[in-house]
Amino acid sequence: MNLAERETRLSINGERLWRSLMDLARIGATPKGGNARLALSALDGQGRDLVVGWMKEAGLQIHVDQIGNIFGRRPGRDNTLAPVMTGSHIDTQPTGGKFDGCYGVMAGLEVMRTLQQHGIQTEAPLELIIWTNEEGARFLPVMMGSGVFTGRFALDTALDARDSAGLSVRDELAAIGYAGKEPVGQRAVGAYLEAHIEQGPILEAEDRVIGIVTGSLGVRWYDVTVTGMEMHAGPTPMAVRKDALLAASEMVQAVVGIANDKLPHGRGTVGVLSVHPASRNVVPGRVDFTIDLRHVDAATLEQMDRQLHSRLADIAQRHGVALDLRQAQYNPPTPFASALSASVRASAAARGLPAMEMVTGAGHDAVHMAMAHPAAMIFVPCKDGVSHNEIEDARPEHLEAGANVLLDAMLAQAGKREQAYQTATGEAHGTA
Amino acid sequence: MNLAERETRLSINGERLWRSLMDLARIGATPKGGNARLALSALDGQGRDLVVGWMKEAGLQIHVDQIGNIFGRRPGRDNTLAPVMTGSHIDTQPTGGKFDGCYGVMAGLEVMRTLQQHGIQTEAPLELIIWTNEEGARFLPVMMGSGVFTGRFALDTALDARDSAGLSVRDELAAIGYAGKEPVGQRAVGAYLEAHIEQGPILEAEDRVIGIVTGSLGVRWYDVTVTGMEMHAGPTPMAVRKDALLAASEMVQAVVGIANDKLPHGRGTVGVLSVHPASRNVVPGRVDFTIDLRHVDAATLEQMDRQLHSRLADIAQRHGVALDLRQAQYNPPTPFASALSASVRASAAARGLPAMEMVTGAGHDAVHMAMAHPAAMIFVPCKDGVSHNEIEDARPEHLEAGANVLLDAMLAQAGKREQAYQTATGEAHGTA
Repeated sequence: MNLAERETRLSINGERLWRSLMDLARIGATPKGGNARLALSALDGQGRDLVVGWMKEAGLQIHVDQIGNIFGRRPGRDNTLAPVMTGSHIDTQPTGGKFDGCYGVMAGLEVMRTLQQHGIQTEAPLELIIWTNEEGARFLPVMMGSGVFTGRFALDTALDARDSAGLSVRDELAAIGYAGKEPVGQRAVGAYLEAHIEQGPILEAEDRVIGIVTGSLGVRWYDVTVTGMEMHAGPTPMAVRKDALLAASEMVQAVVGIANDKLPHGRGTVGVLSVHPASRNVVPGRVDFTIDLRHVDAATLEQMDRQLHSRLADIAQRHGVALDLRQAQYNPPTPFASALSASVRASAAARGLPAMEMVTGAGHDAVHMAMAHPAAMIFVPCKDGVSHNEIEDARPEHLEAGANVLLDAMLAQAGKREQAYQTATGEAHGTA
Repeated sequence: MNLAERETRLSINGERLWRSLMDLARIGATPKGGNARLALSALDGQGRDLVVGWMKEAGLQIHVDQIGNIFGRRPGRDNTLAPVMTGSHIDTQPTGGKFDGCYGVMAGLEVMRTLQQHGIQTEAPLELIIWTNEEGARFLPVMMGSGVFTGRFALDTALDARDSAGLSVRDELAAIGYAGKEPVGQRAVGAYLEAHIEQGPILEAEDRVIGIVTGSLGVRWYDVTVTGMEMHAGPTPMAVRKDALLAASEMVQAVVGIANDKLPHGRGTVGVLSVHPASRNVVPGRVDFTIDLRHVDAATLEQMDRQLHSRLADIAQRHGVALDLRQAQYNPPTPFASALSASVRASAAARGLPAMEMVTGAGHDAVHMAMAHPAAMIFVPCKDGVSHNEIEDARPEHLEAGANVLLDAMLAQAGKREQAYQTATGEAHGTA
């Protein structure tokens, strides 16, 4: 079967995909139409049970590892080959939506169901993954399951993490029946693909259906303290003030300016800012704030870091305030596998789906996977770019389109994956 | 006795003034050298008892009104004349200093002691006032006693005010024995003079000892809400953001800019600013902040108000955010009596004390008094302009100089006050 034939013949069932998403969304449904299914809660357990049931119906063999990641395996013709994987997460934010994470799992499930329905065997095995605790809303660190799987986090550290009520990941995994026996990170990985709503407004603004995600932005987080002099707002003339907030407000603009100098992939955000002593008639003596700088290119991000230090120091000096600028975290930009992105691009083209290259600014399990394995993502639009919100929404036809691209890309990889990786061109596709 | 004679002969006792200040500061002394003597607390009661004892020793007749203001009267030769008054407060901030308020009361006491010591009788009677609850740190409104006295606040509203523990002014006044019988605001007022530490850095910076305070800044307080769009800091490109904090930070600069356009008497301060949802990787969706604009001239302050509305609206429009700008309070500029300021100026000149005209940016009981009666203030430097702080400090020789100017000015008014008011010149002074 060549690619052209597969396109016309083999497509996922968009209605079934939508129905499964809506069925899953009943578990932990919120009054405003969202989902509250926190990681390792009883509701997460119910969600896992529901999806694992569907995975079994689709003929998948279930494996659970010690951090609770679930792997549904579909054997291939040659089971010595490393599997082509897909997946995402089904835990949500406390006031999350129905699509973030769930869509990636349901799209993968739909791929499996479609192959089963059509009796198609792939050369390499396929696996569908539900990662544990991607959101980090209840337990830190975020993207826990994929982080332990790829060796970024130690298993025991993750198992010992506790929520605000003092409950541990270890105990809560056991409580919902997902404390697996399989050692974490021991599974072979041929390739990893993840479908996801964009969680941003670009596809919608550009009127595209498929985002070919070529990598993730690097992120530098900082904590900043600006110390001026607390003084009475009335008796203190403007000229002698050391107004920490006035200086900080220039710094906020500098952060945004540094990102604006590096468009389209620069990001600069001050998300938290607090003023002391916070009295209506007192010139602020101290301001604490955070900075989030992102760029897809590590060298550019480093340049932004240097600009940040220099511009903030200038502003502090000009205002006679003290500056304490500390880097809190650094996650380097992570490029995705170009061969996988090429498969996504080829599928969108073949199906006539308007597509564009983009990067992911948000963290995803795929970013962890990409640090150790060939990985890529497929984005579909979400309404107004809104996510982590009960009003999160996406159009059924977009979700269907993304799942079809996932199907094509997985088949392209699993069919004859050695060649697909080498050429990263359309020729590699017609060989399943 | 003419003015020249009085200068050389009649001066207050600086050492006694300092000793009384330090004695009073033992009541409610804090480990860091400050004072915590909250209004109507047991410590305030002890402070009142101490000072009232001194007032009686200085020959004053004590009267307490229904809001607890204490008046120590020194009869004149003609007691049908309205008294020349001075005073301030002895309540403090929770971590207050030894001079704010206390200096004004002790300087007035020192005037009374000096006149007693030298057997001098004035034409008009003199009165020394301790106002109730100037600081407003425990009970609102601030400047309570002078506010009720001048009809700005209703007596019952003030008596019904409660602290955070639910205790009322009425009950706490009774508890410390200062629930007086005298109706509030019935006393005649010839003139009111108040000595005070500057609570600002100008006198120190200009190397002057006496501030001739010609009026108070008008104050406009605002509450502002800027509403943008809460979005992920990673996936959201810079161009589509509606960053409430970025807009607010420009507004902070506009507030300062508006004040800087109206130097030396313009003030612009953002003292409180809070960001929502305050997450490191979320573009702020909402910022709430306060604005404090001040100027000595009402028309200029109104012009600043118009500029504020226009500039903030421009910034909001440019950033695509919604602006809600609400005036929370307006206290008009209050000019002090020029005749009284003239007495202060004349005394400083005669005593060879470097002096300058200034306005008070902070609120004082004298501002309430000036709304209804001839009133003025005398400022002396405080270290680094710091006040409302345990490290508040002032130099004994400056405090002495200010009390001598108060003495001269009170004598000038009380000696032949009809004429002093009419001419406002040096000629009126030599007639006691």
